[in-house]
Amino acid sequence: MTDTIISSHRKEVVIGFDRPFVVIGERINPTGRKQLAAEMAAGDFSRVEQDARAQIAAGAHMLDVNAGIPLADEPAILAATIKLVQSLTDVPLSIDSSVRDALKSGLEVYQGKALVNSVTGEEESMEAVLPLVKKYGAAVVAISNDETGISEDPEVRFSIAKRIVERAADYGIPASDVVVDPLVMPIGAVRTAGRQVFELCYRLQRELKVNTTCGASNVSFGLPNRNGINASFMSMAIASGMTSAITNPLHAEIMTSIMGADVLMGHDPDCGRWIQKFREPPAANADGSAGRGRRQTRRRRASA
Amino acid sequence: MTDTIISSHRKEVVIGFDRPFVVIGERINPTGRKQLAAEMAAGDFSRVEQDARAQIAAGAHMLDVNAGIPLADEPAILAATIKLVQSLTDVPLSIDSSVRDALKSGLEVYQGKALVNSVTGEEESMEAVLPLVKKYGAAVVAISNDETGISEDPEVRFSIAKRIVERAADYGIPASDVVVDPLVMPIGAVRTAGRQVFELCYRLQRELKVNTTCGASNVSFGLPNRNGINASFMSMAIASGMTSAITNPLHAEIMTSIMGADVLMGHDPDCGRWIQKFREPPAANADGSAGRGRRQTRRRRASA
Repeated sequence: MTDTIISSHRKEVVIGFDRPFVVIGERINPTGRKQLAAEMAAGDFSRVEQDARAQIAAGAHMLDVNAGIPLADEPAILAATIKLVQSLTDVPLSIDSSVRDALKSGLEVYQGKALVNSVTGEEESMEAVLPLVKKYGAAVVAISNDETGISEDPEVRFSIAKRIVERAADYGIPASDVVVDPLVMPIGAVRTAGRQVFELCYRLQRELKVNTTCGASNVSFGLPNRNGINASFMSMAIASGMTSAITNPLHAEIMTSIMGADVLMGHDPDCGRWIQKFREPPAANADGSAGRGRRQTRRRRASA
Repeated sequence: MTDTIISSHRKEVVIGFDRPFVVIGERINPTGRKQLAAEMAAGDFSRVEQDARAQIAAGAHMLDVNAGIPLADEPAILAATIKLVQSLTDVPLSIDSSVRDALKSGLEVYQGKALVNSVTGEEESMEAVLPLVKKYGAAVVAISNDETGISEDPEVRFSIAKRIVERAADYGIPASDVVVDPLVMPIGAVRTAGRQVFELCYRLQRELKVNTTCGASNVSFGLPNRNGINASFMSMAIASGMTSAITNPLHAEIMTSIMGADVLMGHDPDCGRWIQKFREPPAANADGSAGRGRRQTRRRRASA
């Protein structure tokens, strides 16, 4: 039973084995989004604002914030983005950069206990990132690769995760503040990519007793109907013990799959969230207007 | 690595750990379908015929056939239904009855190696059904309950499954011909229903080394958006090791979830079936006419 607590100035989110799955919205990321990159570099955060609001409305519990724009001042842009997002919403953030100075600058302005995304098993990465995580009292995503690259052997990936957890402990960071990313490869390229992750999640929960996350959308890279693959993947990862993911909450199939998996893991008491979301409107009003349908249900009950 | 072979006169289906998931269509069953029951009792099998064709078109690998109609001559109707279905299609069948004489009459007319659905851990059931399974060289679904009812303790359900497998061996039926149904309870009533099944599938594959099946639709009983719950359940069960299910292939969400799970388990080589089903039509033709779109794609390639 391991709980990882992430917070903003006003709100706590707990990632844990016996808790609802935590969805970390992936959208605030200029990688592969030219227009967003250009706007962020020019100090225009209107699209970031839209992305933040839309993801929370769609059910994201946390937001990942990345400002990796080539040739731009990443530390400054990341800090500005974090300040903006924290002024808009109280969901906790994951601060996403491979650049130490950007992480530092993000952590300096962040209010609450952030999730730092990420450290790898490379010596250089651990030496750069773990002291920051400790200094700012954050939690950290630990990606299970090292100088030798990404192994296709789950055993190797497990041992790298273990090494990062041990090194974090040396810096005074408890295992409960390390969220392991077992690394999701595209299933179209690596046939065992799914089973590698499922096996790793299973062992990471039982043996290393750590929470897990991943960049889930990667699994369907290059395939048609990506949302279909992503939806199956999310349910399967949750069944295997995965406790959070960085993914796109704007895709309804993915969120429905996660909500269904929460029900089936016993993490949606009395199926309350499921029933609230999917309760059918009365037949007479089956015009797709769920909102109105629900209100009518209530009125009916009141007058019954 | 356990393969369970089921066959018709012309076709074999293999249920196995390293094989695509086997979907057994549940529709040919008058339970809760008044009109179908009345028609079958009156010797009108037109709806059975439709159900058979529609399920196969939707991707069912096998069909379950049940003729349990109160006050009707179940053995005769079951035999007639099986003969009809085998005249229409070459997919192997699961012969579904709780009445020994009906199973016997179905097995007598069946061409191929049937799946008998089912035996339980009750003494009376094992004594009645297992000799038939042996005599007709069939395989059998073993439901993990006994005289004491359905336990909520996976340990008890596992030991009942083990007992049936051992008893089957006494009759000369190999474990590879026993497909265990771990019993799926409605998640709306039993909060642990999902995890019980996932844990059982995991252990049944690794410790008892048997294939598994279940009446999957039961898990969502009483909830809204049942297909959503069923879709998550299927992926999660497959991740846990379930190798077949009796379910409704006419629901696209469920079949997509199963196909996605096959991809992620590495059971769809080169994602071939997934790509064939979901390949996107060229943008110029994105009017929903996938068939036409695919043809155009082919023409384009031919002329390229």
